[in-house]
Amino acid sequence: MNEVELEGKGKKAVVLLSGGLDSATVLAIARSKGYDAYALSFRYGQRHVWELEAAARVAKQGGAREHRIAQIDLRVFGGSALTDDIAVPKGRDVEQMGHGIPVTYVPARNTIFLSFALAWAEVLGSSDVFIGVNALDYSGYPDCRPEFIAAYETMANLATKAGVEGKQHLKIHAPLMQWSKARIIEEGLKLGVNYGLTSSCYDPAPDGKPCGQCDSCQLRQKGFHENGISDPLEYQNSSL
Amino acid sequence: MNEVELEGKGKKAVVLLSGGLDSATVLAIARSKGYDAYALSFRYGQRHVWELEAAARVAKQGGAREHRIAQIDLRVFGGSALTDDIAVPKGRDVEQMGHGIPVTYVPARNTIFLSFALAWAEVLGSSDVFIGVNALDYSGYPDCRPEFIAAYETMANLATKAGVEGKQHLKIHAPLMQWSKARIIEEGLKLGVNYGLTSSCYDPAPDGKPCGQCDSCQLRQKGFHENGISDPLEYQNSSL
Repeated sequence: MNEVELEGKGKKAVVLLSGGLDSATVLAIARSKGYDAYALSFRYGQRHVWELEAAARVAKQGGAREHRIAQIDLRVFGGSALTDDIAVPKGRDVEQMGHGIPVTYVPARNTIFLSFALAWAEVLGSSDVFIGVNALDYSGYPDCRPEFIAAYETMANLATKAGVEGKQHLKIHAPLMQWSKARIIEEGLKLGVNYGLTSSCYDPAPDGKPCGQCDSCQLRQKGFHENGISDPLEYQNSSL
Repeated sequence: MNEVELEGKGKKAVVLLSGGLDSATVLAIARSKGYDAYALSFRYGQRHVWELEAAARVAKQGGAREHRIAQIDLRVFGGSALTDDIAVPKGRDVEQMGHGIPVTYVPARNTIFLSFALAWAEVLGSSDVFIGVNALDYSGYPDCRPEFIAAYETMANLATKAGVEGKQHLKIHAPLMQWSKARIIEEGLKLGVNYGLTSSCYDPAPDGKPCGQCDSCQLRQKGFHENGISDPLEYQNSSL
Protein backbone atom coordinates (compact mmCIF):
# COMPACT_ATOMS: atom_id res chain seq x y z
CA MET A 1 0.00 0.00 0.00
CA ASN A 2 1.27 3.44 -0.89
CA GLU A 3 1.30 5.31 2.40
CA VAL A 4 1.11 8.80 0.92
CA GLU A 5 -2.32 8.03 -0.48
CA LEU A 6 -3.84 7.31 2.91
CA GLU A 7 -6.61 9.82 3.63
CA GLY A 8 -5.80 10.02 7.34
CA LYS A 9 -2.01 10.29 7.05
CA GLY A 10 -0.76 12.80 9.63
CA LYS A 11 -4.29 13.48 10.91
CA LYS A 12 -5.82 12.84 14.30
CA ALA A 13 -9.11 11.03 14.70
CA VAL A 14 -11.23 10.48 17.79
CA VAL A 15 -12.51 6.88 17.84
CA LEU A 16 -15.41 5.95 20.12
CA LEU A 17 -14.34 2.65 21.65
CA SER A 18 -16.70 0.55 23.74
CA GLY A 19 -14.50 -2.50 23.85
CA GLY A 20 -16.98 -4.44 21.74
CA LEU A 21 -16.53 -6.11 18.39
CA ASP A 22 -17.83 -3.21 16.31
CA SER A 23 -15.72 -0.44 17.80
CA ALA A 24 -12.58 -2.64 17.78
CA THR A 25 -13.14 -3.00 14.03
CA VAL A 26 -13.67 0.74 13.62
CA LEU A 27 -10.38 1.46 15.39
CA ALA A 28 -8.61 -0.89 12.96
CA ILE A 29 -10.30 0.83 10.01
CA ALA A 30 -9.26 4.30 11.23
CA ARG A 31 -5.68 3.08 11.68
CA SER A 32 -5.70 1.42 8.24
CA LYS A 33 -6.60 4.79 6.72
CA GLY A 34 -3.54 6.29 8.37
CA TYR A 35 -5.17 8.26 11.21
CA ASP A 36 -3.55 8.70 14.58
CA ALA A 37 -6.31 7.29 16.76
CA TYR A 38 -7.44 8.85 20.05
CA ALA A 39 -9.72 6.27 21.60
CA LEU A 40 -12.54 7.42 23.88
CA SER A 41 -14.55 5.23 26.23
CA PHE A 42 -17.15 6.04 28.88
CA ARG A 43 -17.86 4.92 32.39
CA TYR A 44 -21.57 5.66 32.26
CA GLY A 45 -23.12 3.51 34.95
CA GLN A 46 -23.36 0.53 32.64
CA ARG A 47 -23.88 -2.85 34.28
CA HIS A 48 -21.29 -4.41 32.01
CA VAL A 49 -18.26 -2.42 33.23
CA TRP A 50 -16.19 -5.36 32.08
CA GLU A 51 -16.24 -3.75 28.66
CA LEU A 52 -13.95 -0.94 29.90
CA GLU A 53 -11.19 -3.45 30.56
CA ALA A 54 -11.80 -4.81 27.10
CA ALA A 55 -11.60 -1.27 25.69
CA ALA A 56 -8.18 -0.74 27.31
CA ARG A 57 -6.88 -4.00 25.79
CA VAL A 58 -8.35 -3.20 22.39
CA ALA A 59 -6.91 0.34 22.39
CA LYS A 60 -3.46 -1.03 23.12
CA GLN A 61 -3.57 -3.88 20.61
CA GLY A 62 -5.19 -1.62 18.01
CA GLY A 63 -2.43 0.97 18.16
CA ALA A 64 -4.37 3.91 19.61
CA ARG A 65 -2.14 6.90 20.36
CA GLU A 66 -4.12 7.64 23.53
CA HIS A 67 -7.07 6.10 25.34
CA ARG A 68 -9.22 8.16 27.69
CA ILE A 69 -12.21 7.16 29.75
CA ALA A 70 -14.73 9.91 30.44
CA GLN A 71 -16.91 9.56 33.49
CA ILE A 72 -20.56 10.41 32.99
CA ASP A 73 -23.56 9.21 34.89
CA LEU A 74 -26.49 8.21 32.73
CA ARG A 75 -28.11 6.49 35.71
CA VAL A 76 -29.20 9.94 36.89
CA PHE A 77 -32.07 9.61 34.39
CA GLY A 78 -32.63 5.85 34.27
CA GLY A 79 -34.73 4.37 31.49
CA SER A 80 -32.59 1.51 30.12
CA ALA A 81 -31.93 -2.15 30.86
CA LEU A 82 -28.21 -1.41 30.46
CA THR A 83 -28.14 1.04 33.37
CA ASP A 84 -31.24 0.16 35.41
CA ASP A 85 -32.60 -2.92 37.12
CA ILE A 86 -34.60 -3.83 34.02
CA ALA A 87 -33.92 -7.41 32.88
CA VAL A 88 -31.75 -7.84 29.78
CA PRO A 89 -33.74 -9.96 27.28
CA LYS A 90 -32.26 -13.40 26.66
CA GLY A 91 -32.81 -16.06 24.05
CA ARG A 92 -34.64 -13.87 21.49
CA ASP A 93 -33.98 -15.05 17.98
CA VAL A 94 -32.23 -12.69 15.58
CA GLU A 95 -35.42 -12.07 13.57
CA GLN A 96 -37.19 -10.70 16.67
CA MET A 97 -34.48 -8.16 17.36
CA GLY A 98 -35.27 -5.94 14.38
CA HIS A 99 -38.73 -5.04 15.63
CA GLY A 100 -39.29 -2.06 17.89
CA ILE A 101 -36.82 -0.31 20.14
CA PRO A 102 -35.29 -2.71 22.67
CA VAL A 103 -35.14 -2.06 26.42
CA THR A 104 -31.35 -2.09 26.13
CA TYR A 105 -31.57 1.22 24.27
CA VAL A 106 -29.96 3.94 26.42
CA PRO A 107 -31.73 7.30 25.89
CA ALA A 108 -29.64 9.62 23.73
CA ARG A 109 -26.51 7.55 24.33
CA ASN A 110 -24.89 8.03 20.94
CA THR A 111 -25.83 11.71 20.98
CA ILE A 112 -24.02 12.07 24.29
CA PHE A 113 -21.02 9.97 23.25
CA LEU A 114 -20.61 11.92 20.01
CA SER A 115 -20.81 15.19 21.95
CA PHE A 116 -17.87 14.17 24.12
CA ALA A 117 -15.99 13.02 21.01
CA LEU A 118 -16.69 16.43 19.50
CA ALA A 119 -15.25 18.17 22.57
CA TRP A 120 -12.07 16.11 22.45
CA ALA A 121 -11.75 16.54 18.69
CA GLU A 122 -11.96 20.28 19.15
CA VAL A 123 -9.25 20.30 21.80
CA LEU A 124 -7.02 18.03 19.66
CA GLY A 125 -7.62 20.07 16.50
CA SER A 126 -9.06 16.96 14.89
CA SER A 127 -11.83 17.00 12.29
CA ASP A 128 -12.54 13.27 12.19
CA VAL A 129 -14.67 11.22 14.58
CA PHE A 130 -15.21 7.49 14.11
CA ILE A 131 -18.19 5.58 15.53
CA GLY A 132 -19.18 1.94 15.13
CA VAL A 133 -22.91 2.36 14.63
CA ASN A 134 -24.68 -0.09 12.40
CA ALA A 135 -28.12 0.30 10.87
CA LEU A 136 -28.65 -3.37 9.99
CA ASP A 137 -28.11 -5.30 13.17
CA TYR A 138 -29.53 -2.55 15.39
CA SER A 139 -32.41 -1.25 13.36
CA GLY A 140 -34.35 -0.68 16.57
CA TYR A 141 -31.97 2.03 17.85
CA PRO A 142 -32.92 5.45 16.46
CA ASP A 143 -29.41 6.82 16.94
CA CYS A 144 -27.80 4.13 14.78
CA ARG A 145 -29.29 5.33 11.48
CA PRO A 146 -27.54 7.17 8.64
CA GLU A 147 -29.95 10.13 8.82
CA PHE A 148 -29.08 10.60 12.50
CA ILE A 149 -25.34 10.58 11.77
CA ALA A 150 -25.81 13.07 8.90
CA ALA A 151 -27.86 15.43 11.09
CA TYR A 152 -25.30 15.13 13.87
CA GLU A 153 -22.50 16.09 11.49
CA THR A 154 -24.43 19.16 10.31
CA MET A 155 -25.07 20.25 13.89
CA ALA A 156 -21.45 19.60 14.93
CA ASN A 157 -20.13 21.89 12.23
CA LEU A 158 -22.23 24.71 13.67
CA ALA A 159 -21.21 23.94 17.26
CA THR A 160 -17.48 24.32 17.10
CA LYS A 161 -14.86 27.01 16.79
CA ALA A 162 -13.27 25.37 13.75
CA GLY A 163 -16.60 25.05 11.98
CA VAL A 164 -17.54 28.67 12.66
CA GLU A 165 -14.17 29.96 11.59
CA GLY A 166 -14.39 27.87 8.40
CA LYS A 167 -11.10 26.17 9.20
CA GLN A 168 -12.22 22.60 8.81
CA HIS A 169 -15.23 20.46 8.20
CA LEU A 170 -15.83 17.91 10.92
CA LYS A 171 -16.72 14.50 9.57
CA ILE A 172 -18.46 11.70 11.48
CA HIS A 173 -17.21 8.42 10.01
CA ALA A 174 -19.55 5.46 10.47
CA PRO A 175 -17.86 2.83 8.28
CA LEU A 176 -19.91 -0.12 9.60
CA MET A 177 -23.27 1.53 8.90
CA GLN A 178 -24.40 -0.81 6.15
CA TRP A 179 -22.34 -3.88 7.00
CA SER A 180 -23.68 -7.16 8.33
CA LYS A 181 -22.07 -8.51 11.49
CA ALA A 182 -20.44 -11.21 9.32
CA ARG A 183 -18.88 -8.57 7.06
CA ILE A 184 -17.67 -6.53 10.05
CA ILE A 185 -15.87 -9.59 11.39
CA GLU A 186 -14.48 -10.50 7.95
CA GLU A 187 -13.04 -6.99 7.43
CA GLY A 188 -11.73 -6.81 10.99
CA LEU A 189 -9.90 -10.11 10.69
CA LYS A 190 -8.21 -8.85 7.49
CA LEU A 191 -7.00 -5.83 9.49
CA GLY A 192 -5.65 -8.00 12.30
CA VAL A 193 -8.27 -7.34 14.98
CA ASN A 194 -7.98 -9.77 17.87
CA TYR A 195 -11.64 -10.39 18.72
CA GLY A 196 -10.58 -12.47 21.70
CA LEU A 197 -9.84 -9.13 23.45
CA THR A 198 -13.30 -7.68 22.87
CA SER A 199 -16.41 -7.83 25.03
CA SER A 200 -19.89 -7.59 23.54
CA CYS A 201 -22.18 -9.08 26.17
CA TYR A 202 -24.91 -6.97 27.80
CA ASP A 203 -24.90 -9.13 30.92
CA PRO A 204 -21.58 -10.94 31.47
CA ALA A 205 -20.64 -13.08 34.48
CA PRO A 206 -18.54 -11.41 37.22
CA ASP A 207 -15.40 -12.88 35.59
CA GLY A 208 -16.37 -11.25 32.26
CA LYS A 209 -17.52 -14.44 30.55
CA PRO A 210 -20.28 -13.53 28.06
CA CYS A 211 -23.77 -14.96 28.62
CA GLY A 212 -24.21 -16.17 25.05
CA GLN A 213 -27.96 -15.48 25.11
CA CYS A 214 -28.50 -11.71 25.00
CA ASP A 215 -29.12 -10.00 21.64
CA SER A 216 -25.53 -8.82 21.39
CA CYS A 217 -24.01 -12.26 22.10
CA GLN A 218 -26.34 -13.90 19.62
CA LEU A 219 -25.63 -11.45 16.79
CA ARG A 220 -21.93 -11.85 17.40
CA GLN A 221 -21.94 -15.63 17.38
CA LYS A 222 -24.07 -15.63 14.23
CA GLY A 223 -21.52 -13.34 12.56
CA PHE A 224 -18.64 -15.68 13.30
CA HIS A 225 -20.73 -18.68 12.25
CA GLU A 226 -21.47 -17.07 8.87
CA ASN A 227 -17.74 -16.64 8.33
CA GLY A 228 -17.33 -20.35 8.98
CA ILE A 229 -15.17 -19.76 12.04
CA SER A 230 -15.75 -19.89 15.74
CA ASP A 231 -15.78 -16.92 18.09
CA PRO A 232 -12.53 -16.87 20.11
CA LEU A 233 -14.57 -16.01 23.24
CA GLU A 234 -15.74 -18.71 25.60
CA TYR A 235 -19.46 -18.39 26.45
CA GLN A 236 -21.48 -19.41 29.50
CA ASN A 237 -24.18 -20.78 27.18
CA SER A 238 -23.48 -20.54 23.49
CA SER A 239 -26.50 -19.99 21.27
CA LEU A 240 -24.87 -21.86 18.38
CA MET B 1 -54.41 35.20 32.58
CA ASN B 2 -56.53 32.37 31.28
CA GLU B 3 -54.69 29.23 32.35
CA VAL B 4 -56.17 26.95 29.72
CA GLU B 5 -54.42 28.96 27.02
CA LEU B 6 -50.95 28.30 28.39
CA GLU B 7 -48.92 26.31 25.84
CA GLY B 8 -47.13 24.28 28.51
CA LYS B 9 -50.15 23.44 30.67
CA GLY B 10 -49.86 19.82 31.85
CA LYS B 11 -46.57 19.34 29.98
CA LYS B 12 -43.11 18.59 31.29
CA ALA B 13 -40.08 20.58 30.21
CA VAL B 14 -36.40 20.03 30.92
CA VAL B 15 -34.74 23.34 31.80
CA LEU B 16 -30.96 23.64 31.69
CA LEU B 17 -30.10 25.56 34.83
CA SER B 18 -26.60 26.83 35.52
CA GLY B 19 -27.56 29.00 38.46
CA GLY B 20 -26.75 32.14 36.49
CA LEU B 21 -28.94 35.07 35.59
CA ASP B 22 -29.91 33.78 32.13
CA SER B 23 -31.01 30.30 33.10
CA ALA B 24 -32.89 31.60 36.17
CA THR B 25 -34.86 33.78 33.76
CA VAL B 26 -35.46 30.85 31.42
CA LEU B 27 -36.85 28.76 34.28
CA ALA B 28 -39.27 31.59 35.10
CA ILE B 29 -40.32 31.82 31.43
CA ALA B 30 -40.95 28.05 31.21
CA ARG B 31 -43.04 28.20 34.38
CA SER B 32 -44.94 31.26 33.11
CA LYS B 33 -45.94 29.23 30.03
CA GLY B 34 -47.39 26.57 32.33
CA TYR B 35 -44.72 23.87 32.01
CA ASP B 36 -43.78 21.59 34.87
CA ALA B 37 -40.07 22.31 35.02
CA TYR B 38 -37.41 19.64 35.50
CA ALA B 39 -34.21 21.56 36.13
CA LEU B 40 -30.89 20.05 35.11
CA SER B 41 -27.45 21.22 36.23
CA PHE B 42 -23.98 19.77 35.72
CA ARG B 43 -20.96 19.24 37.86
CA TYR B 44 -18.47 19.36 35.02
CA GLY B 45 -15.17 20.22 36.62
CA GLN B 46 -15.92 23.94 36.49
CA ARG B 47 -13.79 26.19 38.68
CA HIS B 48 -16.87 28.10 39.77
CA VAL B 49 -18.69 25.23 41.55
CA TRP B 50 -20.39 27.91 43.59
CA GLU B 51 -22.90 28.12 40.75
CA LEU B 52 -24.32 24.70 41.68
CA GLU B 53 -25.43 26.01 45.06
CA ALA B 54 -26.98 28.95 43.25
CA ALA B 55 -28.71 26.51 40.88
CA ALA B 56 -30.28 24.65 43.82
CA ARG B 57 -31.58 27.92 45.29
CA VAL B 58 -32.88 29.12 41.94
CA ALA B 59 -34.61 25.78 41.22
CA LYS B 60 -36.41 25.96 44.55
CA GLN B 61 -37.40 29.62 44.31
CA GLY B 62 -38.37 29.19 40.66
CA GLY B 63 -40.79 26.35 41.35
CA ALA B 64 -38.98 23.50 39.56
CA ARG B 65 -40.70 20.15 40.08
CA GLU B 66 -37.31 18.42 40.30
CA HIS B 67 -33.67 19.45 40.17
CA ARG B 68 -30.98 16.98 39.22
CA ILE B 69 -27.24 17.45 38.94
CA ALA B 70 -25.48 15.23 36.41
CA GLN B 71 -21.83 14.53 36.97
CA ILE B 72 -19.64 14.73 33.90
CA ASP B 73 -15.97 15.45 33.63
CA LEU B 74 -15.04 17.88 30.90
CA ARG B 75 -11.58 18.26 32.43
CA VAL B 76 -10.68 14.96 30.80
CA PHE B 77 -10.13 16.96 27.59
CA GLY B 78 -9.11 20.38 28.93
CA GLY B 79 -9.10 23.35 26.60
CA SER B 80 -11.00 26.07 28.51
CA ALA B 81 -10.30 28.75 31.10
CA LEU B 82 -13.43 27.57 32.94
CA THR B 83 -12.05 24.07 33.57
CA ASP B 84 -8.28 24.47 33.18
CA ASP B 85 -5.58 26.59 34.72
CA ILE B 86 -5.95 29.23 32.01
CA ALA B 87 -6.51 32.72 33.45
CA VAL B 88 -10.04 34.12 33.23
CA PRO B 89 -9.81 37.49 31.44
CA LYS B 90 -10.63 40.48 33.64
CA GLY B 91 -11.43 44.09 32.95
CA ARG B 92 -12.18 43.76 29.23
CA ASP B 93 -14.72 46.30 28.11
CA VAL B 94 -18.02 45.07 26.74
CA GLU B 95 -17.12 46.07 23.18
CA GLN B 96 -14.09 43.77 23.22
CA MET B 97 -16.12 40.73 24.21
CA GLY B 98 -17.91 40.39 20.90
CA HIS B 99 -14.74 39.68 18.95
CA GLY B 100 -13.45 36.15 18.54
CA ILE B 101 -14.10 33.12 20.67
CA PRO B 102 -13.08 33.71 24.29
CA VAL B 103 -10.86 31.36 26.30
CA THR B 104 -13.81 30.80 28.63
CA TYR B 105 -15.51 28.86 25.82
CA VAL B 106 -15.79 25.19 26.87
CA PRO B 107 -15.49 22.90 23.83
CA ALA B 108 -18.87 21.50 22.82
CA ARG B 109 -20.38 22.40 26.19
CA ASN B 110 -23.87 23.28 25.01
CA THR B 111 -23.87 20.25 22.69
CA ILE B 112 -23.10 18.04 25.67
CA PHE B 113 -25.57 19.77 28.00
CA LEU B 114 -28.37 19.53 25.43
CA SER B 115 -27.58 15.84 24.91
CA PHE B 116 -28.13 15.15 28.59
CA ALA B 117 -31.31 17.22 28.53
CA LEU B 118 -32.44 15.13 25.57
CA ALA B 119 -31.82 11.92 27.51
CA TRP B 120 -33.83 13.13 30.49
CA ALA B 121 -36.61 14.47 28.26
CA GLU B 122 -36.88 11.07 26.63
CA VAL B 123 -37.14 9.28 29.98
CA LEU B 124 -39.72 11.83 31.23
CA GLY B 125 -41.74 11.66 28.03
CA SER B 126 -41.13 15.39 27.56
CA SER B 127 -40.81 17.09 24.20
CA ASP B 128 -39.64 20.49 25.43
CA VAL B 129 -36.14 21.55 26.42
CA PHE B 130 -35.31 25.10 27.53
CA ILE B 131 -31.85 26.63 27.31
CA GLY B 132 -30.67 30.15 28.13
CA VAL B 133 -28.34 30.74 25.20
CA ASN B 134 -28.03 34.24 23.88
CA ALA B 135 -26.60 35.29 20.54
CA LEU B 136 -26.08 38.96 21.40
CA ASP B 137 -24.02 39.04 24.55
CA TYR B 138 -22.08 35.88 23.67
CA SER B 139 -21.56 36.27 19.96
CA GLY B 140 -18.14 34.65 20.33
CA TYR B 141 -19.56 31.26 21.35
CA PRO B 142 -20.42 29.13 18.31
CA ASP B 143 -22.93 27.04 20.24
CA CYS B 144 -25.01 30.08 21.27
CA ARG B 145 -26.30 30.89 17.77
CA PRO B 146 -29.80 30.30 16.37
CA GLU B 147 -28.48 28.11 13.51
CA PHE B 148 -26.81 25.83 16.05
CA ILE B 149 -30.03 25.47 18.05
CA ALA B 150 -32.04 24.74 14.88
CA ALA B 151 -29.55 22.08 13.74
CA TYR B 152 -29.55 20.55 17.20
CA GLU B 153 -33.34 20.29 17.16
CA THR B 154 -33.29 18.57 13.76
CA MET B 155 -30.70 16.09 14.97
CA ALA B 156 -32.53 15.46 18.25
CA ASN B 157 -35.72 14.50 16.44
CA LEU B 158 -33.78 11.80 14.59
CA ALA B 159 -32.03 10.59 17.75
CA THR B 160 -34.94 9.61 19.91
CA LYS B 161 -37.60 6.93 20.17
CA ALA B 162 -40.41 9.47 20.19
CA GLY B 163 -39.07 11.22 17.10
CA VAL B 164 -38.64 7.95 15.22
CA GLU B 165 -42.07 6.71 16.17
CA GLY B 166 -43.57 10.06 15.12
CA LYS B 167 -45.15 10.52 18.54
CA GLN B 168 -43.87 13.99 19.24
CA HIS B 169 -41.65 16.69 17.92
CA LEU B 170 -38.96 17.73 20.33
CA LYS B 171 -38.53 21.47 20.55
CA ILE B 172 -35.47 23.32 21.85
CA HIS B 173 -36.70 26.59 23.34
CA ALA B 174 -34.12 29.38 23.48
CA PRO B 175 -36.28 32.35 24.51
CA LEU B 176 -33.35 34.66 25.33
CA MET B 177 -31.66 34.21 21.95
CA GLN B 178 -32.20 37.75 20.67
CA TRP B 179 -32.56 39.62 23.96
CA SER B 180 -30.07 42.06 25.42
CA LYS B 181 -28.94 41.45 28.99
CA ALA B 182 -31.03 44.46 30.02
CA ARG B 183 -34.16 42.96 28.46
CA ILE B 184 -33.49 39.56 30.08
CA ILE B 185 -33.34 41.22 33.48
CA GLU B 186 -36.43 43.33 32.77
CA GLU B 187 -38.49 40.29 31.77
CA GLY B 188 -37.16 38.21 34.65
CA LEU B 189 -38.07 40.84 37.21
CA LYS B 190 -41.63 40.93 35.82
CA LEU B 191 -41.80 37.16 36.40
CA GLY B 192 -40.54 37.45 39.97
CA VAL B 193 -36.99 36.14 39.52
CA ASN B 194 -34.84 36.80 42.57
CA TYR B 195 -31.50 37.67 40.98
CA GLY B 196 -29.93 37.84 44.41
CA LEU B 197 -29.95 34.02 44.37
CA THR B 198 -28.07 33.70 41.08
CA SER B 199 -24.36 33.41 40.42
CA SER B 200 -22.83 34.58 37.14
CA CYS B 201 -19.15 35.07 37.91
CA TYR B 202 -16.50 33.00 36.10
CA ASP B 203 -14.07 33.41 38.99
CA PRO B 204 -15.79 34.07 42.33
CA ALA B 205 -14.07 34.31 45.73
CA PRO B 206 -14.14 31.19 47.95
CA ASP B 207 -17.22 32.61 49.71
CA GLY B 208 -19.01 32.96 46.35
CA LYS B 209 -18.66 36.72 46.08
CA PRO B 210 -18.45 37.64 42.37
CA CYS B 211 -15.26 39.28 41.08
CA GLY B 212 -17.04 42.08 39.23
CA GLN B 213 -14.38 42.19 36.50
CA CYS B 214 -14.80 39.08 34.31
CA ASP B 215 -16.87 39.30 31.11
CA SER B 216 -19.88 37.72 32.76
CA CYS B 217 -19.86 40.06 35.79
CA GLN B 218 -19.47 43.10 33.56
CA LEU B 219 -22.31 42.16 31.21
CA ARG B 220 -24.54 41.51 34.17
CA GLN B 221 -23.82 44.79 35.91
CA LYS B 222 -24.32 46.68 32.66
CA GLY B 223 -27.71 44.99 32.25
CA PHE B 224 -28.89 46.12 35.68
CA HIS B 225 -27.48 49.59 35.08
CA GLU B 226 -29.44 49.91 31.83
CA ASN B 227 -32.61 49.09 33.75
CA GLY B 228 -31.78 51.91 36.14
CA ILE B 229 -31.48 49.53 39.09
CA SER B 230 -28.59 48.02 40.96
CA ASP B 231 -27.62 44.37 40.96
CA PRO B 232 -28.68 42.75 44.27
CA LEU B 233 -25.31 40.94 44.39
CA GLU B 234 -22.38 42.39 46.30
CA TYR B 235 -19.18 42.44 44.23
CA GLN B 236 -15.50 42.27 45.18
CA ASN B 237 -14.79 45.05 42.68
CA SER B 238 -17.75 46.44 40.83
CA SER B 239 -17.11 47.58 37.27
CA LEU B 240 -19.80 50.24 37.54
